[in-house]
Amino acid sequence: MGGSPAVHAVRSMSEQIGKQSLQFLNPPYILSSGSVVGTREGEGPLGKKFDMVGEDDHFDSDNWEAAESVLQKKALNIALDKAGIAPEELRYLFAGDLLGQSMATSFGLQQFEVPLVGLYGACSTAGLSLSLAAMTVAAGYADLAAAVTSSHFASAEKQFRFPLEYANQRPLCTTWTVTGSGAFVLAGKGKYYDLTHRDFHEKIFTEDSEDLAYSGWKNDYDVVVSGITTGKILDYGVRDSMNMGAAMAPAAMDVIWTHLNDFARGPEDYDLIVTGDLGEVGKKILIDLLQEKGIDISANHTDCGIEIFDNEKQGTGSGGSGCGCSAVTLSAHFLPMLRSGEVRRILFVPTGALLSKISFNEGQNVPGIAHAVVLESVSDGKGE
Amino acid sequence: MGGSPAVHAVRSMSEQIGKQSLQFLNPPYILSSGSVVGTREGEGPLGKKFDMVGEDDHFDSDNWEAAESVLQKKALNIALDKAGIAPEELRYLFAGDLLGQSMATSFGLQQFEVPLVGLYGACSTAGLSLSLAAMTVAAGYADLAAAVTSSHFASAEKQFRFPLEYANQRPLCTTWTVTGSGAFVLAGKGKYYDLTHRDFHEKIFTEDSEDLAYSGWKNDYDVVVSGITTGKILDYGVRDSMNMGAAMAPAAMDVIWTHLNDFARGPEDYDLIVTGDLGEVGKKILIDLLQEKGIDISANHTDCGIEIFDNEKQGTGSGGSGCGCSAVTLSAHFLPMLRSGEVRRILFVPTGALLSKISFNEGQNVPGIAHAVVLESVSDGKGE
Repeated sequence: MGGSPAVHAVRSMSEQIGKQSLQFLNPPYILSSGSVVGTREGEGPLGKKFDMVGEDDHFDSDNWEAAESVLQKKALNIALDKAGIAPEELRYLFAGDLLGQSMATSFGLQQFEVPLVGLYGACSTAGLSLSLAAMTVAAGYADLAAAVTSSHFASAEKQFRFPLEYANQRPLCTTWTVTGSGAFVLAGKGKYYDLTHRDFHEKIFTEDSEDLAYSGWKNDYDVVVSGITTGKILDYGVRDSMNMGAAMAPAAMDVIWTHLNDFARGPEDYDLIVTGDLGEVGKKILIDLLQEKGIDISANHTDCGIEIFDNEKQGTGSGGSGCGCSAVTLSAHFLPMLRSGEVRRILFVPTGALLSKISFNEGQNVPGIAHAVVLESVSDGKGE
Repeated sequence: MGGSPAVHAVRSMSEQIGKQSLQFLNPPYILSSGSVVGTREGEGPLGKKFDMVGEDDHFDSDNWEAAESVLQKKALNIALDKAGIAPEELRYLFAGDLLGQSMATSFGLQQFEVPLVGLYGACSTAGLSLSLAAMTVAAGYADLAAAVTSSHFASAEKQFRFPLEYANQRPLCTTWTVTGSGAFVLAGKGKYYDLTHRDFHEKIFTEDSEDLAYSGWKNDYDVVVSGITTGKILDYGVRDSMNMGAAMAPAAMDVIWTHLNDFARGPEDYDLIVTGDLGEVGKKILIDLLQEKGIDISANHTDCGIEIFDNEKQGTGSGGSGCGCSAVTLSAHFLPMLRSGEVRRILFVPTGALLSKISFNEGQNVPGIAHAVVLESVSDGKGE
């Protein structure tokens, strides 16, 4: 049965904390990340921060699903490129998207030839994939693992609502699915650790300067995943596929509340609490639901869906959504803030609405799920 | 950054083996399992071995998708019941199905209120969910975790091919999606270990004796997950959604070949090599492909899809398929063989075909993926 008694003893030192959280003894590093977005995202407030903005949303593909596959491929290639890592050095890929049977992932990532864990958590998959990659690296199961998620406005509208060609109208509470993919390379302390702190900026501009809208960051700190809280499904009876923010807010409330209890922390222990894609409508509901529980996150809460678009100017309804939304916003906006030391600890909480065209047409509710990831900047004697 | 130097040292003792495998220092136990199937499976060669056979395939539901959710709910309840465990004792659920956006899982498992990792690996998900549950328990992230997968003939035909009401004809190479769900409860050595070796037989019959077709087994050994090999996507250019066996065989070949290399083993080191749902057609291709690589598994290979139906009598084409197929066959047929000591080591290799209705209609290939799980019977001084 392998291993000395000493191994058994140490292995049983629990990283389990509270009801549904883990605090890593050896927090894995986010070595690098990549973000690729469509035109509307490029025109938004974060436009200049993304690694790549497409010339149009087709990405040289015959259909929207194939375009979404290209997003994943490019995002992972950029993240690998920044870290100077070849695909065969990755031991696991944790990835997912919103399409039925996760087709953007299957066709986007097969060329990397890396063992693949396909995930589905709707728009929460960005948190789920980071959580599992972190668990895997922290346990020593991999020296390097990557997490990739994507969404595409046109493939999502076709999948969940109506094909764009129908030109249907959208209520204001609707969120706008982000066309984008974010990829993250995680590494354990050891072999690959020295790769952090390199100047990503130079590398990325020399590769293909026309495509890349990347602007460098102050890279004084490393970023680790120090803990996670994995969410449960919550069903508050919402049935409106045009109001995903309301469907997901209860799940976000539940996982944030559980997280703070598990870690015996308050909102003030985080510089930012960043949900995935609640949008303006869902944000209000989340803050209200937590206030009912005596927790006030209004001072330090924001939402990737709110950050990524200027809703009034861009006509994006309640805000951005999709499992690309939180991934690209984390990669391009929040990770640099952690790397520069502008913020030191973020609770990242991607949120997902669990529905399919079939479940919606059969009159089922739209339950929500959310997964929380603790991101911290660490100096370890370097960079400061 | 937490932990003494001793912890760091032990943590870095690699469980990584070869290119894409893990060998667990503390292999988790399969504490219990549950299997629920439809009528056709109940009439098949393994019919008397399943824990529950439905009276019809509706399982008191309004539609096929809801029926599949009931399958998952019942399978997990049976597995928990056998082990005498309450849902709130589970720290993680790893689960998936074949439906778009994994709806059978979302609606089948939400009532358990357990942190959920939604997975998609087509019919390989039975292997993927067992792999991740084993990784999680072996790393000490959970004392108890469960893996659940399902498929339903009618929901799968509607999802991937044609609704049953169209009464379309099926070529002989087509596999028949199994209506069924299998659930597995995994535990680390420690707190829950003493629960093994209990007499499952008695318990299950006293609960609800009319529904349960369970027949007891000789329970002399415990079963552990001693290692895993996580698969990559393989695309051999198959485009026929009616011939999934051919689409999946290359992925099965690749993961078995890699597994044997990683563990420096030959087929003779396994009493059985059990693929998920290749069927008669895929089995032949797999054996041929491995023979080209100098490996002969013909003496000890079988396939869950071949075991579960009597194809000639039951008109089930090339054999059973679906991520319920391998799960229920493992639970009802192969686990008891390990528990009785009839076999001591099995390589369990669920196989998946990565397609959606949309990818198929857009002319994409059907790539395959497969995940290998090593199951061993251990006595640990008890039971023998």
